Amino acid sequence: MAKHTIIRGGTIHTASESFVADILIEGERIKAVGAGLGAPASATAINARGMDVIPGCLDVHVHLALPFGGSVSCDDFDSGTRGAACGGITTVIDFAIPSKTMTLDEADKVWHKKSKGEAYVDYTWHVALTDKAHVGQMQGMIDRGLPTFKSFMIYESEGWNSDDALLYAALQNCRKMGGMLLVHAESPRVLDLLIERQHSPAKMRKHGAKLHAVTRPNFVEAEAIERFIKWCEVTGGQGYVVHMSTGEGADLIKAAKARGIPVHAETCAQYLVLDDSRFAEKNGHLYACCPQIKKKADIERLWKALETGGSGTDGEVCVVSTDTCSFTKAQKDLWWQGTKKDGYGDWTKIPMGMPGLETMVPIVYTLGVRAGRISMNKLVDCCATTPAQVMGLGESKGRIAPGYDADVAIIDPKRTISVDWKKLQSNCDWSPFQGMKLGGFAHTTLCRGQVVVKNHKVVGKKGFGRFVKRKLG
Amino acid sequence: MAKHTIIRGGTIHTASESFVADILIEGERIKAVGAGLGAPASATAINARGMDVIPGCLDVHVHLALPFGGSVSCDDFDSGTRGAACGGITTVIDFAIPSKTMTLDEADKVWHKKSKGEAYVDYTWHVALTDKAHVGQMQGMIDRGLPTFKSFMIYESEGWNSDDALLYAALQNCRKMGGMLLVHAESPRVLDLLIERQHSPAKMRKHGAKLHAVTRPNFVEAEAIERFIKWCEVTGGQGYVVHMSTGEGADLIKAAKARGIPVHAETCAQYLVLDDSRFAEKNGHLYACCPQIKKKADIERLWKALETGGSGTDGEVCVVSTDTCSFTKAQKDLWWQGTKKDGYGDWTKIPMGMPGLETMVPIVYTLGVRAGRISMNKLVDCCATTPAQVMGLGESKGRIAPGYDADVAIIDPKRTISVDWKKLQSNCDWSPFQGMKLGGFAHTTLCRGQVVVKNHKVVGKKGFGRFVKRKLG
Amino acid sequence: MAKHTIIRGGTIHTASESFVADILIEGERIKAVGAGLGAPASATAINARGMDVIPGCLDVHVHLALPFGGSVSCDDFDSGTRGAACGGITTVIDFAIPSKTMTLDEADKVWHKKSKGEAYVDYTWHVALTDKAHVGQMQGMIDRGLPTFKSFMIYESEGWNSDDALLYAALQNCRKMGGMLLVHAESPRVLDLLIERQHSPAKMRKHGAKLHAVTRPNFVEAEAIERFIKWCEVTGGQGYVVHMSTGEGADLIKAAKARGIPVHAETCAQYLVLDDSRFAEKNGHLYACCPQIKKKADIERLWKALETGGSGTDGEVCVVSTDTCSFTKAQKDLWWQGTKKDGYGDWTKIPMGMPGLETMVPIVYTLGVRAGRISMNKLVDCCATTPAQVMGLGESKGRIAPGYDADVAIIDPKRTISVDWKKLQSNCDWSPFQGMKLGGFAHTTLCRGQVVVKNHKVVGKKGFGRFVKRKLG
Amino acid sequence: MAKHTIIRGGTIHTASESFVADILIEGERIKAVGAGLGAPASATAINARGMDVIPGCLDVHVHLALPFGGSVSCDDFDSGTRGAACGGITTVIDFAIPSKTMTLDEADKVWHKKSKGEAYVDYTWHVALTDKAHVGQMQGMIDRGLPTFKSFMIYESEGWNSDDALLYAALQNCRKMGGMLLVHAESPRVLDLLIERQHSPAKMRKHGAKLHAVTRPNFVEAEAIERFIKWCEVTGGQGYVVHMSTGEGADLIKAAKARGIPVHAETCAQYLVLDDSRFAEKNGHLYACCPQIKKKADIERLWKALETGGSGTDGEVCVVSTDTCSFTKAQKDLWWQGTKKDGYGDWTKIPMGMPGLETMVPIVYTLGVRAGRISMNKLVDCCATTPAQVMGLGESKGRIAPGYDADVAIIDPKRTISVDWKKLQSNCDWSPFQGMKLGGFAHTTLCRGQVVVKNHKVVGKKGFGRFVKRKLG
Repeated sequence: MAKHTIIRGGTIHTASESFVADILIEGERIKAVGAGLGAPASATAINARGMDVIPGCLDVHVHLALPFGGSVSCDDFDSGTRGAACGGITTVIDFAIPSKTMTLDEADKVWHKKSKGEAYVDYTWHVALTDKAHVGQMQGMIDRGLPTFKSFMIYESEGWNSDDALLYAALQNCRKMGGMLLVHAESPRVLDLLIERQHSPAKMRKHGAKLHAVTRPNFVEAEAIERFIKWCEVTGGQGYVVHMSTGEGADLIKAAKARGIPVHAETCAQYLVLDDSRFAEKNGHLYACCPQIKKKADIERLWKALETGGSGTDGEVCVVSTDTCSFTKAQKDLWWQGTKKDGYGDWTKIPMGMPGLETMVPIVYTLGVRAGRISMNKLVDCCATTPAQVMGLGESKGRIAPGYDADVAIIDPKRTISVDWKKLQSNCDWSPFQGMKLGGFAHTTLCRGQVVVKNHKVVGKKGFGRFVKRKLG
Repeated sequence: MAKHTIIRGGTIHTASESFVADILIEGERIKAVGAGLGAPASATAINARGMDVIPGCLDVHVHLALPFGGSVSCDDFDSGTRGAACGGITTVIDFAIPSKTMTLDEADKVWHKKSKGEAYVDYTWHVALTDKAHVGQMQGMIDRGLPTFKSFMIYESEGWNSDDALLYAALQNCRKMGGMLLVHAESPRVLDLLIERQHSPAKMRKHGAKLHAVTRPNFVEAEAIERFIKWCEVTGGQGYVVHMSTGEGADLIKAAKARGIPVHAETCAQYLVLDDSRFAEKNGHLYACCPQIKKKADIERLWKALETGGSGTDGEVCVVSTDTCSFTKAQKDLWWQGTKKDGYGDWTKIPMGMPGLETMVPIVYTLGVRAGRISMNKLVDCCATTPAQVMGLGESKGRIAPGYDADVAIIDPKRTISVDWKKLQSNCDWSPFQGMKLGGFAHTTLCRGQVVVKNHKVVGKKGFGRFVKRKLG
Repeated sequence: MAKHTIIRGGTIHTASESFVADILIEGERIKAVGAGLGAPASATAINARGMDVIPGCLDVHVHLALPFGGSVSCDDFDSGTRGAACGGITTVIDFAIPSKTMTLDEADKVWHKKSKGEAYVDYTWHVALTDKAHVGQMQGMIDRGLPTFKSFMIYESEGWNSDDALLYAALQNCRKMGGMLLVHAESPRVLDLLIERQHSPAKMRKHGAKLHAVTRPNFVEAEAIERFIKWCEVTGGQGYVVHMSTGEGADLIKAAKARGIPVHAETCAQYLVLDDSRFAEKNGHLYACCPQIKKKADIERLWKALETGGSGTDGEVCVVSTDTCSFTKAQKDLWWQGTKKDGYGDWTKIPMGMPGLETMVPIVYTLGVRAGRISMNKLVDCCATTPAQVMGLGESKGRIAPGYDADVAIIDPKRTISVDWKKLQSNCDWSPFQGMKLGGFAHTTLCRGQVVVKNHKVVGKKGFGRFVKRKLG
Repeated sequence: MAKHTIIRGGTIHTASESFVADILIEGERIKAVGAGLGAPASATAINARGMDVIPGCLDVHVHLALPFGGSVSCDDFDSGTRGAACGGITTVIDFAIPSKTMTLDEADKVWHKKSKGEAYVDYTWHVALTDKAHVGQMQGMIDRGLPTFKSFMIYESEGWNSDDALLYAALQNCRKMGGMLLVHAESPRVLDLLIERQHSPAKMRKHGAKLHAVTRPNFVEAEAIERFIKWCEVTGGQGYVVHMSTGEGADLIKAAKARGIPVHAETCAQYLVLDDSRFAEKNGHLYACCPQIKKKADIERLWKALETGGSGTDGEVCVVSTDTCSFTKAQKDLWWQGTKKDGYGDWTKIPMGMPGLETMVPIVYTLGVRAGRISMNKLVDCCATTPAQVMGLGESKGRIAPGYDADVAIIDPKRTISVDWKKLQSNCDWSPFQGMKLGGFAHTTLCRGQVVVKNHKVVGKKGFGRFVKRKLG
């Protein structure tokens, strides 16, 4: 007989309402939501009175154990999904990235192998298109529950980059087959030029990690987004701009949506809190992610973008993710490679990326909800309901309602901690949010009815998390 | 002990999700939503398997027993709320309209008197501002749960009209006090001129009721909306355009929202289905409502407007209502007054308005959902959740969730009827939708847990419906 | 035999080019433009070497000897046209304003009488529409060479105001008959409300003339312009916004032109230099004109507006005028009427208006050309060529080319004076520009070949100026 | 002593006015413009009574004797400038295009050599940037009077293409040095993809030359223009879109100008008259130019674009040119190369381009002015005054005014001919306008005072035309 759990008396927040009720869970699914619900005597009871109860969140943009920039990102499906659970996230979406000579099928297999038996919460991946030949392999991926694809407009050195023809052809397929194309939007040729102009020992010695920001003015992202929007418009294919970091991007998405072009955008937690003054710090190079963190004005514009659009995908930004791609200090120190003796680091050699899974919901909770910028319902909308919907999990994940997966995060509204990387699940030996006072970590997390985090401790089982198939609506 | 009702196995639609579950009602409220819910033995069970179950809807724009155009509208709180219930509507919002010499308080009393003991479902009213002096009385109304006000830009002959100064001052108060100003937007002076130019026996003889459309080109509404938006912008007061009937209006609201101006818009069911070719019919004058029904292109534009914005108020149109103001054939025949002997009717003498409460949800269901223009979730959004939210009932009405009023409409998706005014609750002896094939009428309607309609028959009790206080969020 | 004049060697500026050449004048017309032109021995030679030579300018917005605000403006066709000539202006356009009970024909006669034999340079007038009945009299005016009309959206107390119906009907006629409607755009009802709120002894005592600005926030003009644009759009009639004083206005005209709506705008010299900090001065009430002078930001926006659009009417602002309506200190002191004993002035009693004819070109020359904001060609464009074109004098005035009226202003680029009202032609005993250092006054002015100003002195003959007929292109 | 010519009594049209006058020419320059001008007895008199007299026009976009597409364009500086003269054009601007391994200096020398002693009218060239190294050589070109540069976004096979980095760097230089960057805007990668998809024997056999249009949908140009505008915006460099062929382009330029971005656009005569139904003709492949001729709707949109903006560069399109690049039938037949035996032509092998110099002004005159779309003043503006201004010849060319080069075209308004390639100056053995009835050919053309065409016959001297230096304003 199915196991029962009842979460008693919490303040439940959905994307559009807040109310006090119990949640009855039977097996892996939510069975009922109501006041004073009856439950079998055998049911495990969780007391959530005075707590905020939200659907388990999704981080739809993570890179676990990714070979990148001459290193392999240090968080894997084990540590990554532990961090996720502690941060109230019950589904993560990684990226299966084939080399140009691999097939999509081969990449999918590599990712299955990498994740098998490792995860504490559920997972899946987007499939990257890195070669023209991959366009012909998209239907096969959709058929196996992988309907979202990724193109990189940059990263020629990694062999990942797509040109306009690939974007165009992939979007045509998305239109035809019911897929969606995610894009890393940065304008490659001008970016290369700007990097080349700064890439001298003298300038590197003088400016250090600041060159990461200097060489990526906002228009590098803006031009790429504008171009991608054009391809979405002319193909009718559904596009999705990942990790949008600029106010200009929000303006472009706003204009595109007003013209009825099928394109959405996500931002990442770091772009809602960190600005590029960090690069002036002693270990500023640690903050190098891609795209880089921008200006204070961008932070404010992105929060405003999140506010728009009601619940659903109509807003200028409709999803918050993390682009988690953790590198340890030692890995980041690749920037000294061959130059340390000369007393400077080379910012182009830094493995770009940072940890973020565990702190995503806390950042939105603290700097968004507590700071009065958005409501709890909006937090649920952009961290759970809409990510689930837009990525093809709208019928099972991201909502608290009968029949949905019993993915639930319970937050103690009175608790605030000072972030310390030593206490996070990440394998990373630093945190971009070190010392920040954050609330919103999960007191309790359930994934498909199973308690994974209890009293802020991981109690789940490695390998419990499973691969989930997706289908766009 | 509180009475229990359990609605078993229906397909529940909220503004953002659809799932199969039971609804347990205790007293006047929803207690739980879930699969296989337990219920006291004493509970009344309603079998909703295979049925669509939605929150009881709101019609936020009705005029019951309104003295207008030399007549009194023929549907009152009795017939009107019976019709509402049969159409799945459990809350209606009327308009208390004082003459210029009355106070708002006096108008409120008149409406309490008129409605007392009459209604089958819940009700309240907006308060019209028809005189400068009323601006100073707004706070008093807000304090008694009436936070929404109405200004008419036309109707000088009725003594109802507001000039720009009144709009401006009222919106300033809305900003300050937390109210909202509804507006009937038509440009009065040019409208008068256009009417005057056509108002000759020769033209009336030749064109008949068509002159109602001829004298109100779309720009009459558009200019007024544009001006109202300007006042919302400069005061920061929340505005709401009622019964928007033109595509131009949707364009203006879209642009205003893009600029962050606090303004929303509703349309009415008739503007989503009827066009002005009706005026060429033999009894075309029956179709005279105000604003008049427009062109086929406006119908399509307004459906598109409804689609925008996710759930909530971000869309170009966020609410559907009816502007019910029923007049019998005999009343409509005022248009022969003094001219019948000369063989023509005078369109300016027609009491403008039509019945609509019972058919609102069916029109949206049939021409919206069944026709593939919108989803059931959007129907719930624009007929229940958002009207409740925007009018200050967001904490009790318009949602199916624990703690909310047990207002529920159950629709048999397999049933379609041919509209016949003889079988409708309205006192009106004709229907603008006569002969249309519509589904979406309520098989069962509950208002605060009480079954009001059962098997398409009114079983509720006159006087059960009560006045509800409102408060804007 | 016709008299000849030859202007030798000046730097001629047209709306689109600058070059050194002679101008040969025969009788009233320019005969030739060229280098080393031959001329009859009898020709009068004017040495313009080193001088700027421009077409005689137009001030298309003046009120001479106008009964207004309980007074009569103190500059008449005599002093006004003397001032014009000294400022390089050879054509002025006044406004014939009938009372509501007069006909347009009667107003025209009054203005003929008032101007007959008085003027030093050429003149004509726009005809104001102050009553519905005037709409039917427009064709008669066009037939006699008066194709431009004026509507005031305010000034109910003067009996001058037009409502939307009058604007609409007049614009329809403009479309049909080839006329143009000028509008004084201020939103009357909200303006009245804002005035009423400040019109107490306490506030007047405290704020004085500043209340003129306080009660006319920019949106008072902006709403009115937006509405007027709408009427131009729906009628297709050519509109023209006079004395536009706000940046918001420029934004609206820009947007309207982008949508192809037939509307132009002028600003006045005072709005390009004075801001409302003047009202805080001791005699701040002297600066009351209508609309009032605005903010520094508006000044900058209006200069930018002037820069747009190439030569012709495509710019956001295409004409500079003055709205000259001079009142002496004694007249302005009507503001003490009935309140002086109580120690305060009442700003609503000030006759609104100021002198400006003589200083218009100098202001554009000094603050525009010398300050590097615009070129000499743009000065010619917005002070001569375009005003002539847009007002129906494009075939005779505003250009230096063979066949055009020999209206020429010669400016000594090296001369700058400090403005002193005592030395100006105006009957006014003060100047809003007192003490400003300005260049650009006319060293020599010719009107139809006749020298009217010579060496900065008036040498023309009273009554030489004549009424000119106009016809729109 | 300088030679004199006097053109008597023509109707002179400038960019902003029309009047009857004489033009006195002394040596190479215009000396005077006026009625009944005196002239030395020795002066040559040209009777222009009843004629339209306009400034000699410019064709700022020609390719004479250009090696391209495996051929050399068949019109050279001899035939090309003869055709120009017969079409009222007195200045042509070619393109000096270096291979990637040449320097700009070398290309300039090649073009000097190619043109030396060949031309009947004046000439110069833009300098193409085909390699990164050329960016560093721009100042040198500007210093020798060549301030305008060209980038091709396509033509990788010719070795001419620029990537975004080159565009960006070149525009930065334009900003800094006072240059202007012309761009051939087509989106290369998607274009390649679309071509590849059609490039099969089966499709070529079936569709023939139509594939030229099929593979270049309007968005191929639109995306490229949008991107170029972005680079203009972020660098502040002045851009200029050559041969714009789409309505979408006009919309983009309109929006860019409204935002103050420094970008202009030209279209070519063929895009104002030919549409892609031509490709269905028997010898449709002859019409292949690049970009290809588009749809009837584009033709209408481009005429509307020409109407905007007054005189000067503010319009959506401000210049008409020809992109003359003539290929004979035999050359065009390269499309059979290697495929004729299989019974089909390969559109990708056609040398793209057509003759046009002689017919440019006649097309604008006939389909623009005579057809009532534009005025004679606008013809002068977009064919003479603005091209001269925008290309840095504003102080010598493109205007009829004292001091300007005596470049004049005299058109007999009563004359219309049927175009016949046999009677044109072009070396081409066909014409895209064969059989069209056109007026507007030059009866008489003067270049720097020298009669080059007389009574529709070339009477000029080969080699008279000279290289002219330019400088941007």
